[in-house]
Amino acid sequence: MLINMSVNQDVHHQAFYLTRELFHESYKHKAKVIWFTGLSGSGKSSLANEVSKLLFEHAIKVFVLDGDNTRLGLNKDLGFSLSDRKENIRRVAEVAKLFVDSGTVVLTSFISPIEEERMMAKQIIGKENFIEVFVDCSLERCEKRDVKGLYAKARAGEIKNFTGIDSPYEKPSNPDITVNTVDQTITECSQIIFNAIKPQLNE
Amino acid sequence: MLINMSVNQDVHHQAFYLTRELFHESYKHKAKVIWFTGLSGSGKSSLANEVSKLLFEHAIKVFVLDGDNTRLGLNKDLGFSLSDRKENIRRVAEVAKLFVDSGTVVLTSFISPIEEERMMAKQIIGKENFIEVFVDCSLERCEKRDVKGLYAKARAGEIKNFTGIDSPYEKPSNPDITVNTVDQTITECSQIIFNAIKPQLNE
Repeated sequence: MLINMSVNQDVHHQAFYLTRELFHESYKHKAKVIWFTGLSGSGKSSLANEVSKLLFEHAIKVFVLDGDNTRLGLNKDLGFSLSDRKENIRRVAEVAKLFVDSGTVVLTSFISPIEEERMMAKQIIGKENFIEVFVDCSLERCEKRDVKGLYAKARAGEIKNFTGIDSPYEKPSNPDITVNTVDQTITECSQIIFNAIKPQLNE
Repeated sequence: MLINMSVNQDVHHQAFYLTRELFHESYKHKAKVIWFTGLSGSGKSSLANEVSKLLFEHAIKVFVLDGDNTRLGLNKDLGFSLSDRKENIRRVAEVAKLFVDSGTVVLTSFISPIEEERMMAKQIIGKENFIEVFVDCSLERCEKRDVKGLYAKARAGEIKNFTGIDSPYEKPSNPDITVNTVDQTITECSQIIFNAIKPQLNE
């Protein structure tokens, strides 16, 4: 007889004046999620930063969601176990979807090493608004760069569950865009990504 | 010797090209959170909707975060226990902060019945960007409206932890704006709120 609201049967989607269509018309571009995936040190955040600049300069409403930043706020209760990392991706995908609802192009920069979880993100966001960018860079090169000194700590056993060392990275099976940051500079890769996504925002 | 990354000592804030200052300059307005609080049925979502329309028509980049909507996505893992409701508010505040980072004015529509939790939201968002709007409406009137039929279910014992019935609502001790939806229409209250916040976005 007792129904607990936790099953959410009494929560319904509320219609608002502000809609995706209204934002699209007003901002003169579509809103999509550009999902960067790759090893730590592959260049995801540098690329997201550069591409966001190019989009901003072309009057696109744009924002960057970053693993480091969200982990200090929304997801600060989550660790790096496989289940916590999955929840991390789920929440980021839900937030990215809200930004799409607001008419904003979102660049997300997360290692997101598991194919199934990236597909979960794609499903949450909606496949028509999800553009997967594989930032391809060898583990050797990422480890050599080691900008944050994390690989050294992982090798020393001071960090557990580190992607590429003692936690898997599954390459995307069918990414929309692939860039290789060993062969090409961040500037070159950014232009490739920008050129690939810009037309899709103006369809 | 073993350090688990879950303590986040290896996560640092990353600097991006896109900043609040850049968005402020580009969009020609500040970004703030307009936090609506009040009983179920007091008119929060109707007001957020109307005020968002007024802001949008004045070329403000604006978005609405709503309890019903976020509970179907980001917070669908949360129930209505006091601890889950607190986590609900924490996540919404963190997301609202991300929207402020993106230059967007956010209208949040949540019962948010506990003063301490609203103060937590204010602290997360930053007091300089937090405008609390108390939607004052008597329990009697809310229950009489009962748009969603929830009060009837709560009285019948079919819903537990329902604010105003078997869960407390603490009135804001010092709201920035108060409107009374018993004495005034949604249109009148919306205009009061719009007039109060618009100058603060253009300071």
